[in-house]
Parts: sequence; C-alpha cells; structure tokens
Amino acid sequence: MGAINGEAFIQRIDKLGTEIWFDGAKINGLLSEHPHFKGILQSKASLYDLQHDPNIKEEMTFASPKTGEAVGLSFLQPKSKEDLYKRRKMIQHWAAHTNGIMGRSPDYLNTVLMSFASSAELLRNQKNCFPEHLIKVFENARDRDLSFTHTFITPQVNRSQVYIENSKLPIAAKVVGETDQGIIIKGARLLATQGGLTDEVLVFSVGRFLFNEDEAFAFSIPSNTKGLSFICRDSFLGGDSRIDHPLSSQYEEMDSIVVFDDVLVPWERVFYYNNGDAAEEFFEECSFHAFAKHQVLIRQIVKTEFILGLSQVLIETINVREFQHIQEKMSEIIIGLETLKALLERSENNAALDQWGYMRPDVTPLKVAGTLFPKLYPRFMEIIQLIGASGMITLPTEKAFHSDIREKLDLYLQGATKTAIDRVKVFRLAWDLSMSAFGTRQTQYERYFFGDPIRVASDLYKSYPLKTHTDKIGKFLNLD
Amino acid sequence: MGAINGEAFIQRIDKLGTEIWFDGAKINGLLSEHPHFKGILQSKASLYDLQHDPNIKEEMTFASPKTGEAVGLSFLQPKSKEDLYKRRKMIQHWAAHTNGIMGRSPDYLNTVLMSFASSAELLRNQKNCFPEHLIKVFENARDRDLSFTHTFITPQVNRSQVYIENSKLPIAAKVVGETDQGIIIKGARLLATQGGLTDEVLVFSVGRFLFNEDEAFAFSIPSNTKGLSFICRDSFLGGDSRIDHPLSSQYEEMDSIVVFDDVLVPWERVFYYNNGDAAEEFFEECSFHAFAKHQVLIRQIVKTEFILGLSQVLIETINVREFQHIQEKMSEIIIGLETLKALLERSENNAALDQWGYMRPDVTPLKVAGTLFPKLYPRFMEIIQLIGASGMITLPTEKAFHSDIREKLDLYLQGATKTAIDRVKVFRLAWDLSMSAFGTRQTQYERYFFGDPIRVASDLYKSYPLKTHTDKIGKFLNLD
Amino acid sequence: MGAINGEAFIQRIDKLGTEIWFDGAKINGLLSEHPHFKGILQSKASLYDLQHDPNIKEEMTFASPKTGEAVGLSFLQPKSKEDLYKRRKMIQHWAAHTNGIMGRSPDYLNTVLMSFASSAELLRNQKNCFPEHLIKVFENARDRDLSFTHTFITPQVNRSQVYIENSKLPIAAKVVGETDQGIIIKGARLLATQGGLTDEVLVFSVGRFLFNEDEAFAFSIPSNTKGLSFICRDSFLGGDSRIDHPLSSQYEEMDSIVVFDDVLVPWERVFYYNNGDAAEEFFEECSFHAFAKHQVLIRQIVKTEFILGLSQVLIETINVREFQHIQEKMSEIIIGLETLKALLERSENNAALDQWGYMRPDVTPLKVAGTLFPKLYPRFMEIIQLIGASGMITLPTEKAFHSDIREKLDLYLQGATKTAIDRVKVFRLAWDLSMSAFGTRQTQYERYFFGDPIRVASDLYKSYPLKTHTDKIGKFLNLD
Amino acid sequence: MGAINGEAFIQRIDKLGTEIWFDGAKINGLLSEHPHFKGILQSKASLYDLQHDPNIKEEMTFASPKTGEAVGLSFLQPKSKEDLYKRRKMIQHWAAHTNGIMGRSPDYLNTVLMSFASSAELLRNQKNCFPEHLIKVFENARDRDLSFTHTFITPQVNRSQVYIENSKLPIAAKVVGETDQGIIIKGARLLATQGGLTDEVLVFSVGRFLFNEDEAFAFSIPSNTKGLSFICRDSFLGGDSRIDHPLSSQYEEMDSIVVFDDVLVPWERVFYYNNGDAAEEFFEECSFHAFAKHQVLIRQIVKTEFILGLSQVLIETINVREFQHIQEKMSEIIIGLETLKALLERSENNAALDQWGYMRPDVTPLKVAGTLFPKLYPRFMEIIQLIGASGMITLPTEKAFHSDIREKLDLYLQGATKTAIDRVKVFRLAWDLSMSAFGTRQTQYERYFFGDPIRVASDLYKSYPLKTHTDKIGKFLNLD
Repeated sequence: MGAINGEAFIQRIDKLGTEIWFDGAKINGLLSEHPHFKGILQSKASLYDLQHDPNIKEEMTFASPKTGEAVGLSFLQPKSKEDLYKRRKMIQHWAAHTNGIMGRSPDYLNTVLMSFASSAELLRNQKNCFPEHLIKVFENARDRDLSFTHTFITPQVNRSQVYIENSKLPIAAKVVGETDQGIIIKGARLLATQGGLTDEVLVFSVGRFLFNEDEAFAFSIPSNTKGLSFICRDSFLGGDSRIDHPLSSQYEEMDSIVVFDDVLVPWERVFYYNNGDAAEEFFEECSFHAFAKHQVLIRQIVKTEFILGLSQVLIETINVREFQHIQEKMSEIIIGLETLKALLERSENNAALDQWGYMRPDVTPLKVAGTLFPKLYPRFMEIIQLIGASGMITLPTEKAFHSDIREKLDLYLQGATKTAIDRVKVFRLAWDLSMSAFGTRQTQYERYFFGDPIRVASDLYKSYPLKTHTDKIGKFLNLD
Repeated sequence: MGAINGEAFIQRIDKLGTEIWFDGAKINGLLSEHPHFKGILQSKASLYDLQHDPNIKEEMTFASPKTGEAVGLSFLQPKSKEDLYKRRKMIQHWAAHTNGIMGRSPDYLNTVLMSFASSAELLRNQKNCFPEHLIKVFENARDRDLSFTHTFITPQVNRSQVYIENSKLPIAAKVVGETDQGIIIKGARLLATQGGLTDEVLVFSVGRFLFNEDEAFAFSIPSNTKGLSFICRDSFLGGDSRIDHPLSSQYEEMDSIVVFDDVLVPWERVFYYNNGDAAEEFFEECSFHAFAKHQVLIRQIVKTEFILGLSQVLIETINVREFQHIQEKMSEIIIGLETLKALLERSENNAALDQWGYMRPDVTPLKVAGTLFPKLYPRFMEIIQLIGASGMITLPTEKAFHSDIREKLDLYLQGATKTAIDRVKVFRLAWDLSMSAFGTRQTQYERYFFGDPIRVASDLYKSYPLKTHTDKIGKFLNLD
Repeated sequence: MGAINGEAFIQRIDKLGTEIWFDGAKINGLLSEHPHFKGILQSKASLYDLQHDPNIKEEMTFASPKTGEAVGLSFLQPKSKEDLYKRRKMIQHWAAHTNGIMGRSPDYLNTVLMSFASSAELLRNQKNCFPEHLIKVFENARDRDLSFTHTFITPQVNRSQVYIENSKLPIAAKVVGETDQGIIIKGARLLATQGGLTDEVLVFSVGRFLFNEDEAFAFSIPSNTKGLSFICRDSFLGGDSRIDHPLSSQYEEMDSIVVFDDVLVPWERVFYYNNGDAAEEFFEECSFHAFAKHQVLIRQIVKTEFILGLSQVLIETINVREFQHIQEKMSEIIIGLETLKALLERSENNAALDQWGYMRPDVTPLKVAGTLFPKLYPRFMEIIQLIGASGMITLPTEKAFHSDIREKLDLYLQGATKTAIDRVKVFRLAWDLSMSAFGTRQTQYERYFFGDPIRVASDLYKSYPLKTHTDKIGKFLNLD
Repeated sequence: MGAINGEAFIQRIDKLGTEIWFDGAKINGLLSEHPHFKGILQSKASLYDLQHDPNIKEEMTFASPKTGEAVGLSFLQPKSKEDLYKRRKMIQHWAAHTNGIMGRSPDYLNTVLMSFASSAELLRNQKNCFPEHLIKVFENARDRDLSFTHTFITPQVNRSQVYIENSKLPIAAKVVGETDQGIIIKGARLLATQGGLTDEVLVFSVGRFLFNEDEAFAFSIPSNTKGLSFICRDSFLGGDSRIDHPLSSQYEEMDSIVVFDDVLVPWERVFYYNNGDAAEEFFEECSFHAFAKHQVLIRQIVKTEFILGLSQVLIETINVREFQHIQEKMSEIIIGLETLKALLERSENNAALDQWGYMRPDVTPLKVAGTLFPKLYPRFMEIIQLIGASGMITLPTEKAFHSDIREKLDLYLQGATKTAIDRVKVFRLAWDLSMSAFGTRQTQYERYFFGDPIRVASDLYKSYPLKTHTDKIGKFLNLD
C-alpha cells in the first residue's frame, strides 16, 4: 500500500464512522461532506497528494524497510545527518503547502510515533511494558500511511499545585480494569486537535504519577473503537468564502475532548500501563522532544515567513514603509525569523547518534526555540494589528463586491498600490490570521504548544549545563 | 418630549428607513428585527429605559432650560463641579449597564455635541461659520433626545506622510458645490461606529487643510438624508445564544463607511465649511477633548472593573490563585484600574471654568489616560488568555448542554468551584471579550480610540508644560 | 528646644562619637569633617535650616502639644485633611531642597516614628509590650528634633523560602538575655541607610516569627550606645567637585550593617520584645504603611519632576526633540509623573480617620504607587541613557576646563544650545543620576524601597477587595 | 619581527610619547606606569603574550605571506571556511582571556584593517583614492604587529536631522589644505576607545557627504604624529584592588576625543580623501561589516557566557534557585546565549567568497545579532541586579577584611554556600559589571556598538530581502 493520496485518505476517514459530537448532535453522514469538516479534510487530502506530486515525490517518500514500497518520509528513522536533512526538506514541503498554518499536518504525529518507536528499547524488560507492540503499531502506521491525533492532557478541573482528584467517577482517563483481552479505560482526555478526523488516536501520559499510577499508560487505537467518542468544541470556521475567510475555510482543525467510556484497549495495542516510573522515564529520555521539536520548529519558520510576507504586503498596500516605528516592528519579525532559522541549523549541526543509532537533533537549541516562539508569535500578531490599524476593521464581505455598491467599494477602499478587492483580500487575511476566532485560537495554540510557558522556561534553566560557566567565575575570582 | 425610553427609540429608528448596505444587500424591513442589528438596538433601547428607571431617573435627567422637560443629563452643559460630578454619575450608570462594553452608548455622542455647542463662540464672526446653527442643532437634539454617530476620518488609501489625493472622483468627502439651499458633499468618510443605527450623523473635520480646504467642514444631518448611505463591514455577531456569545449577541455595534453621493446639506445644518483655519482652531480649542475624554475614561474604568472581576472569576474557577505569576498579572490589572481612577479624580479636582463659563475637567490627566489605556487594554486581554490557557479553547456550545452528552460535559468540564455549565459560561465570556472576532475588534477599537498611539504619545509630550522643570535644572547647575 | 537648625544638628552628631567603621578603620575625629561624610551632613544641615527659613517656617513647624515650642511638622499627628495637606506641603519643601535625591531626609523617619506612636494603642495590654515607652520616645524625639535611621532586615545569608538559621553565634540580631535594666541584643541587622549619621537608631521587626520569636522586638537607642557599631559599605562618593559629581558630592548617604555586640537596651526604650504575634499585628495594622508611603510618594514625585526636567534639558542640549522615539520616551516619563500625582491625590481624597482619631491617607493608591515606581524608576534611568547616547561617556573633568585645552573643549564639546561647560554640566548630572556608582545605588534603592518587587505585587493582589467585581460577573452570567 | 609579546608592546607604546591629556594635565612619564593606564596596558600586554603561549601559539599566528614570520592570526585574510574557523578560534582565545570584557582587544582593529585591505580594489581608479597605500599600511601593521584605535564619529553638537555645521573653526575634522607632502586635517573626532594607547589611529568616514565632502577621507597615522592629541574623559578606574574593582582595575579602556591641529597626513598614509561617493561606496560594500561583526559577536558570546556563569554563582551564593521568577530570568540569559551562538554558526555556515576571493561570513545573521545584543545586554545587567537585590549594595572594601572587624564580616556576610570574603568577591564582580561607573559605561558601549539602535533596526529592515515572501502572499491570495 505505502504512501496514500488524498482520495484514499478521504475514503478511509469517511468509512470509519467515528463517534463525533458537534454542536449538540452526533455526526451522521460522510465526514468529508460535513460543512464544518470538509475544509480541513480537503486540505489534509491535498497534503497527501503532495506525496504523489512527481516534482517532489522523491523528497516525500522512502522505501519501507519491510515492504519496499514508497512510504511517507515522515516515518523515516534517521540514522545520519543526510537522513535528518531529508526529513527537514520533507517537513518544509508539508509546511509550505499550508504556509505553516495547519498545526497538525500528518508529519507531526508521524514524527511523534517514529520517535516513540525509535526509543522503544527504553521499555524493554520493564513491568507492564511492551516495546514490541509499539514497534508493530509504528510499522503498521508507516506501511499503511495511517493518520493520528494524540492526547496527553488531563481535564483542567483544578490547576492548583496540590490538587488530588476525588470525584467518584473518573474524570481524568484511568485504567479501571484489565481482562485477558486488554485494559479498560474510563474517563476523559483533552484536548485532541483534529480528534475524530484521523485513523487512530495515540494516547500517552506526561508528568508525575506518585498518587495516580492508573493514569500512566500509552497505547494507540482506531478512532472508531467501541466506547470512544469525541466531543468537539464550537467551530471557528467563519464561512466558505476564500476571500472572507481565507484561513478558517481551509484550516479550521477542530479540537475535541476524547471520552473513554469503558473502552477496551487490546493488549497488542498497549505500549505500557500502570507503571509511573517507566512512563516518566520513557517520556523524559525518548527522542520525542528532539524530533517533535524539530518538526515544529520547521513549520514555525515557514509560518514566520508567511507572517513576514504578509506584514510587508500590508505595509505596501497602505504605504507606511517610511515610518520608523513600522521599520522597527518589521525588524522584530526579521530578528525572530533569522533566530529561528539559526537555532534550527544549530540543532542539526550538533545532531548526534543516540544509544540506539538514531540521529537526534541537538535538543537544546530546539528547546530555546520552543521557549521563544510562544513569546514571538503573539507579538507578531500584535504587530500585524498595529500595522493594519483601522484597516483591520474596514472589512466588507465578498458578496458586497458582487452587488450594486461594487463601484463605491472600488473607489473608496482602494489601497496605495492595490485595487479595492485586492486590498480587502490582504486585510481579510491579516484579520483571519490575527483577529478572527480562528486566528486567536492559533495564537493560543502556538503559545501553549509545549505547555505552560512559565514551566517551559523553568525547564530550560533546570536542564541547561552551567558548571563550565560557574567554574570560570570561580577561577577568575580565586574562590575557595 | 424630553428624554425618551427604549420603545420610542426603536420606533424612531425603524421609521427612518436609512439606506444601509449589509453583506451585499440593501436592508429592507424593520432594522430592529434584522438578525444582525436587533441585538445592539435592544441593548441601546435598554439604555434609554434607564432614563425612566425610578431609582435613578433623578440622576439621569435634568430640566431642559428651554422646555423645562426632563431631558438626558448627558446633554447638561456643566457650570460647576457639582454639575461635573452629576455628569460622572450619569455616565457611570450608562456604562455599568453594559459593563463598559458598548463603546458608543448614547452619552458619548451627546457629550460630543454638548461640547461643540458649548464652544460655539469660537466660530463667531468667522468666514463660512454659523455658531447659531450648531447651538440650534444641539438644543433640538437635547430636547428631542436624538441619537448620533460621528465620522471624521478619511479613507485609508495611503498613509504616507506626504500623500496628496489625485483621484478624479473625490475619495475623501468634499464640498463639491454650493446652492442657496446648502452645500453639496461627495465622497466617503470612515469609519462610523453604529453608522446607520442613529437618528443623525455628525460630520466634522480633524487635521490640517493646507491643500484641501474643501475637506474642512462640519454639520449634522438625519441618517435618512437623500444621497447618504452606510456600507457595513462584515458582522462580528457570533450568534443569538447568550451563553455562547454573551457579548456579541448584545453589543455588536457595527462600523460603516459613510458615503455621500451629492448630498445636499441644508444651510441651517452647516456649522462651518471651506475654512481650514477655523476648523483647526475649533477642534484644537473647543471643549471636545476635555468632555469626550472624561466620558471615555469613566466608561473604560467600568470596563476595567469588569475585566478585573472576570479575571478573578477565571482564577477561582480553575483554582490558580496560588501561582505567583498569576498574582503578578492580577496586580497589573489592579495597578491599571487604580491609575485610571486616580487620573479621573485628578481631572475633576483640577477642573476649571473655561472662557464661556463651562466647567472643563483638566485635560492633561485625561490625555495621560488616553495614552495609557491603548497599551493597558491589549495587555489585559493577553492576561485573560494567559490565565485561561487551554480553557479558552475548550468551548462546547450551549446546544451541547441540551443534548445526550450533557452528563459527560457535566463531569469532565466541571471547574474547581463551578459546575460545568457555569465554567463554560465563564470561559465563553472570557473568550468573547478577548478572542472572538467581536472581542478583537474591541481591542482594536480601544487601541485606536483617540487615533494612532504613536501620535497620541507625541502630542502628550508636545503639549506638556516643561519650563518649570527645566528651569529647576538650570538653577541646580547654575547654567548660563 | 524644638525644631533645630543645621548648626545644632552638626554639633550634636559630632558630639556623639558613634562607633563607625569605614574602609577598614574606625572613624576618629569629627564626623562632619570626614571626607566621605561631610557632604551628606552638610546637606542634612541645610535641610534643618529650612525649618528656620522665614518664608516657609510656618509651613515647616507647629506648636508642640507638650512644650508649645515650634517643632518639626513631620512629627505632626494629623487629625484632619487639613493636617494631611500641611504634611504634604512640608514634605514637598524637604524634598524640593534635594530634588528628591536624598532618600532619607529627616522627615521620612520622623514620619515613621509618628505613625508608630499614633498606633501605640495596638500594644496596650499585650505581653511584653510597652506602648507608653513608644509614646515617650516619640515625644522626646519631637520636642528635641532628634534624627533617626531604622533597620528591619536580617542578613541575606540564604534567601531560600525554607531557610532556618543554624549558626552557633547569632547572625540575625536576637534577644540573648534580659536583666532588670533591659534586654540584651546580639547579632546584626542590615542595611541602615545613614546608619551612624543620626542621633538614634530605630530597630523593629517585620515578618513572621513562628520559629524565632527572639527576633521579634522593637526599640530605639542612641547611636553611641555601648556595644553598638556601624560597618559602612564602600563609599560611592565620586569626589568633591560639584561639576564632576553634582549628586554624590552632596547626597551620598552611606548604608551600614548595624552590629549589636551584647547591647543593653534599657526597658524604657523597649516597645515590645519576644512576642511574635504582637509584632506581626502591630506592623500589619499600624499606620506606618499609610504615612510612610505618603511621604515616600511625595518625594518620588519631586524626583520624577527632576528627571523630567533633566531629560528635557538633555534633549535641548543636543537638539533631538524632533525624533519620534524621543517623544515617545518623554511621554513615558510624563505618564509616570501624572500617574504618581494622581495616585497621591486619590490617597488624600479618600483619607479617613482611623480608630484612634488620626487621618490616614488611603493606603491602596499608595500601594499601587509603591508597586509602580520600582518599575518606572529604572526605566527612567534607561531613558536618560538612551537620550544622552554617546554623550553620557564624553565626560572630561572640571580640571580640564581649567587647563590649556579649555579652548578646544569649548569648541568641540559645545551643544546645540549650550556652551561646552554647560553641556558637560548637564551630561555629568545625567551620568551621576543614572550611571555613576552613586546613581546605580539609587536605582537599586528605589527598586527595593518597600521590599522584593515580586512580593510587593503579590501583596497588592492579595489585599485588594475583589468581591464587588466578581459578584457583577456572577450576576451578568446568572451563575449559581 | 612578526607577532609581538606583551613586553614589546609596552616598550613600543611607552616610547611613542603620544600627546594625551588627562584630568587637565598632559601626561608625562611612561604611560605604562600611569595609575590610570597601567591596568589596561598590562591587560593588553597579557593578550599579546597569548601569541607566544606554547599551548595555543599555533592557533594564534600564521606565516606572513611576505616575510614568512609568524604574525597575528587576526590579520589573516580568510580564503576558505577553514580560515574562517581559524579566525573564530583565535578570536575566542583573545576574548576568553578577558571574558569578553575588553571591547577593543587588538584583534578587533586588526580585523577592521584586514577587511579594509581585502576590499581595497573598490578604490581602484577612483578620484583621490589610493588602494595601494591601504594595502601597504595593512601589510606593515601585520608584519610589525602594530596596534590601532579608530575614530569615525563627528562631535555630537546637534543631532537634529537637518543640522549643518556653521562654526567658523572646523568642529568635525576636515581637510583644510593639501601640500605635496600630504593633506592637512583640522578639527575633532570622537570617541576613540583606547585613543592614545595604540601605535596608530585609523581614521575613516561613515555616512553621507552631500554638503561636506571635505569630511570624506580615510587614513592611518602614528599616534604621536605632530598636531595630533587625545583628550581623555574622566577615568572609570575604581581603584587597584582586584577584590574591590575586579574589572575596572584591569579593563578600564578609556575613551578620548581625537584632536587634529593642522595635522599633516603624508600621502602614503592617505587611502582616500575629498570623494564622498567613493567613501560611501567603500564603507557600504567593503567586508568591514562582515568581518568586524563576526569578531564582535564572538566576543559578545564569550561575555554572555561570563554573565551566565556569574548569575548562576550569585544564585548559588544566596540560594534563590527555587524561585520561579529567578528561573525565568535565567532562561532569558540562556535564550540569549544560544541565540547568539546559533546566529554565529549560521553566518559561518552561509559564508561565501566575495568578488576578490575572500571568505565572508554571511552578514545577515551578524546584523541580526548586532540588533539584538544592544537590547539583550542591558537586560542582562538588570537581571544581575534583580538577582543580587540588596546584596549589590552591601559591599565592604578589601581593607575591611584586613582589619579588626574581619570576624564580624565573616559571620554576618557569609553566603549560603560561600565564606564572607568569597561572597563579597562575587557581589563585587556583579557590581563592577553592572553598577559601577566602569560597568555602566560598558552597558552604553554595547548598546551603541554599531550606532543608534533605532537606526540599526531600520537598516536591518531596509536591507532584508522580502520579495520571495511577499510573492507567496500574492500567490496565496491570487492578487493581481
């Protein structure tokens, strides 16, 4: 089978009949025809088509070590810097196709699963751990080009530092039973982006499990597994018009609460369970951080280029290039872009083979990028708003341009270098990126991609090697 | 007649039949029943009803010096500090009713018109100036409780510092002719908030007119004047549900481009025209800045209290009060609120009678507030997003709570101190204020209320008296 | 006796013979002639002379309720708003004389002692508490115009949140014994500004005393008490030239570690001891916060005016007024100044009588100012550096102007509106305020005036009333 | 001769007898024994000794293409990436020796001169241009290991945008005559760091010369040339104690005004004169920006490592590692450091041969670093002050530790992990770096290294290629 195209993807998803709740109703009919899901599914399909684009097919696939078929390169377990550069190229292709706007293009989760599988040995010979299941799930995904979402956050009932859940019914998903067929899961997880829109859902655990080892598990199951359902948030799709809603009409990905109603996870799907130490160690030491952050950074660079281009087009549209504060704001975006690119290069320059022979990018520059981008992105959105000023509000609809008042719009809304309709397109895009419900959700998404920014910053400090530097101070001052 | 109630307001607006274009179509039928306008019109009606609320009627009206009838207190021309405090009280009532969310509650424009009329003497004996027309229009408005919008910005074709319009057809509205009945206006103005939803539209000019004196004019005409039309931007109404869209369902005010298609403005409606010097001097020296900024600051204080309360409710809902960075963020809002309140007090403490006997608040602290709030408000919105975190995304719809999955929502979405539905209400409000298309338009609105923030800051510096302070340095250093 | 003049102050301090260690040696000879102390003592003397300046004497003194003599108005226990305004006026006079640069002008500690005495009733009938001693010490200070320093911070060995001192010898000053004559104190306190340069030292405790009740005490003793010594830090006096070191030559106040080497504190000097609860309650509820913060804010306003004047003189000197980023920076200082003034007015507007009949300023706006200024001041210093640019470095000495190269300096260092010598004076002042060792110590001093800025912000939040605001949200959303 | 050692450097400088004015007097006697210059000269001497350190000599020198002798590697004109890496290594050695504190270590100006010589062909066949003089001066410098300062800024009389000098006597240095021996220069330049402390002074022009072509020249002359003199600013040397003044005792570099009193510059020393176009083109297109920014960034990275180490030692000294705001501040320094390192790598990765065969680092990432560091450095200094808090003030002198009170200091000033003396050393260093007059001059120096930060940011924007990015927007939106 190997790398699929868009049509195959759509057919497979439509066939699943996953239980999805949207706006108080269970979805019936084909998902790909649902007004709120057709846009994102078509966009995903067009991404899969890239794998068969003759111009780049070579850069998008590789021969499966198992079947020899051409499979998606995001599943490639890199063993050399060359492999790493290939991965970068492939990620750039995926990202460029959506200008970095689609947060969960398939390569992200393929990368996550690849990193897990490449670190499966960490689970070897540990209680309740099944590395071979993990490898099998990975190989199956690779050779059939399955798509995934993941979920690892527990419901936000109480974020206090010392909270212990004491509800009678499980809130956070837990192992509530165990049979000869598998483990039984009850409770919820949130927030799965594209939850329900993928072949499978990858469930794993992050954090500490001193008091609740029954929350320490990892597995992957098909989205249409019995007892599994997805509850969607409100949709941020603005409408179908590509002019009025250039982004949300294509890229509204949806986020869902994942509900496990006594879901049976078959043994061959379980990677580990009821082993907090193994769960923590696995998450800490596997190559997830290196590979996932590598993918994310590449996408964010493409997105930043999009932001930079858009900002400049705004500037030209209303001719504000000469203002010094505009120049300073643009220099901020440029500094951000160049910094991200440089950090990516540094992570690749300093990549090294891990203990199992996989070429990991250096995680430190990637962590730095992961701490920086959540601050840069909201500022970029603010800069766009500050450049656009009142133009961000003066937004007639596409229909108005097809009505009797077109002539007036053409006259009064023209830009310095643009016709009225082009000007409106530009401002609509700026608005959809930074001010629509779709856009602000993207801001929140980028801000919290790797978790609470405060914690991310603390972690960077705690994990950073400082001894060489403090030793130099000791020597300079002749300290005892 | 005097101060009207909500019903009278609605009837009058419905009767006008103003030419309004929305989403490519001219509005027919009653405006108050149009899905995109009924919310804001009902909210405005409820504001007018306040004038007849027996508990506060005394604080909302005063006896017209002309008719003796009880008229709206926002039309009061204050002659003492007592009058000023009365005005503050009245503005607080209006603002509290919408928590400061409605930017253009009627008192704003009533205040603007009052300030113009109170400075009419500036126009006395100047070429093409008619102070008595201004006074008459004001008295008519006061005694009939007319509602207004205003418009003073020209289209944003080209914001370069040296731009001169050279289109064949007027883009910015201009005087294109003059008859014995009045002046003829052609071109556009933007962006009138609630444009089309008021009895009249007040048109005046801001800025320098060295090269285009034909843009220097001021008048007020009924919204349904022949040749006058309003082109709406896209609507930011999210929907009718008070739970899903607690703010936009009530307060989406709409902004419009105002088009003058050879509109005849009768002489008795013209305040001045074709006199750039008079226009500049009038805008510079009239009491507009003092009284409008006084009204705006009072509303912004009420809004800031709403933001503070909401932030605290968010904190309690997910129990994050103990985090130090949360405490620091809350202290930012508190500092902002107390600062605004103090600046308001200072402007009233230092109020003084102007040359025509009206008690003007001190404009300097008001200018400071007007420079500060555009920076504070976006930061407040960011703080709400940072407190809410992923909860700002986990937003099911009201309908979901009326469906079979209610039980699951109740379980998984409960807050530390709230039921699931209450928790969702709280986060929905936080989202509608800071992240919906309605909310981000509010941010842009507050950011640009008194114009380009860069220019506002420069103006504060240029107008601030510094000599006392520089003299002290000279003395301290014995400078020549 | 009553309010003293400068000469009397100098004589009294010289006579004390306090044990002060400076740069590795014990000071012998007259303190007022010591190169590192004469500047500050003369500046203090000139402040005392203000009390006898015929133009303002009335505003600087009042009749002692005990002796009827004219005593310093900083000792006035205000019973009305009039009294509060009198206090403000007096503080402004003191502050204006040093442009707010002297942090510990005598009125500060006089105010502290006044606030303690005015709250003495809090100590009534509590274990180990002696309210009448406190009142007596206060009356004696008032009627003899004694000067004070204070010290309430323990040595910064370990700032960890759970640190418990376990040194064999006391590090933080403790009660180590008790005789019929008084209590015995051993250990150190830091950092007393002007420690050793005042008649007495006021020692009291701040914070929690769960495990170390022996650190909970308060008393005042003469600086020359046996066993008491002051260890100075390095001096930040740059030199005697008023041109080269316009500030440090006059206002270098010195900070000292206060060492108690088995110091006997006579009973009549002890306010309380070994009573942690009383100490905490006293510090929490006495009027110290209200009155001290009132004095400090008035001084900081005067200092901010000085900063604003200096910045403008810098701008004029090198003619950079037209640059927009300069205008924006100046608007920042203006916003800061107006905000501080407004907060002061608000604290006075809302002043109220406390339970013992004293008119306390509202502490909330003062707390806000106390949270704000530590952020504003360092930014102001940065703005001065950004305006001055390379001119902050191009600093020849006064001597160079009295040498053969004067002509060259006159030519090459002239400013746009200033002679070379005046230009150098201006930049020297800017440098001494923001970049000399004296200046940066001032920055640190203002930043930490009321303690760790993080904690100050948290306290503001924790003590701020929020219920009214959260109730409104509950009502708006119809929460349960 | 080739690469010299420290002793040779000192002897040469002492022998010059350059005319230097310090604190109103002309310096007589040996410069290396002058209290205010001996520290920096010894530090420079120790840098030259590095060239003969057997461990790194190979990395510090290369064989002169002319003499075959080992000459300083900072003079190497790189022709390959290998050469570039060699240069990096050498710069790191110089920088590490002073922890990046010495801004003008000899490699900086050697690099500048090397870059000029490597671009000499730009001057070929242009009016009044002498590329062969430039090459000769460079080769002489390389083979004799001469040291340089440079000066290119005109006096800051009036920084207005439209200022035209109209003094009768030249203020900015100008060509005032021309003989068969050379050109005559009169006027001043500022601010030459280490002016007077080097063998030669390199004078060149930056900027536009529409109205004053007589200011467009470049040459290098010995410091003791007749008519040339250096007027020092005040010294920021705090004292000789390495404990009290660990940095200023070694690295106070001094800045001087350079005065030309009818100085004759011999023709063989003139690179160009009276040719504004050539001057502008040369400065714009020569490899100065690439190579100088490369050297500067490497030094700034070393300095940032020093800052990071010092901050961590401070944290350990008072045990504040657990505070979250401390962790966040440290993450800021780490982000800064990693970003600078990544930008350096990127500039080297993308280095390319210029038209004359020299391997230039990519200037864009270097420009980004040059825009970023002036913002990072002052923030780093603020972070140090915020970590150190009151400890930055509690600074006894070394002498105090050699006096009778040592025991008390040992007890009361001990740190959590340090003896009192070590603790004081650490805080003294933090103070000397961030708060002494030496430290704040360093801050201003880093802030303005490549000129006005506002202009640097504007230049980054104006020179950055944007078309690829705007084209993508056009394509995405189907713009005309």
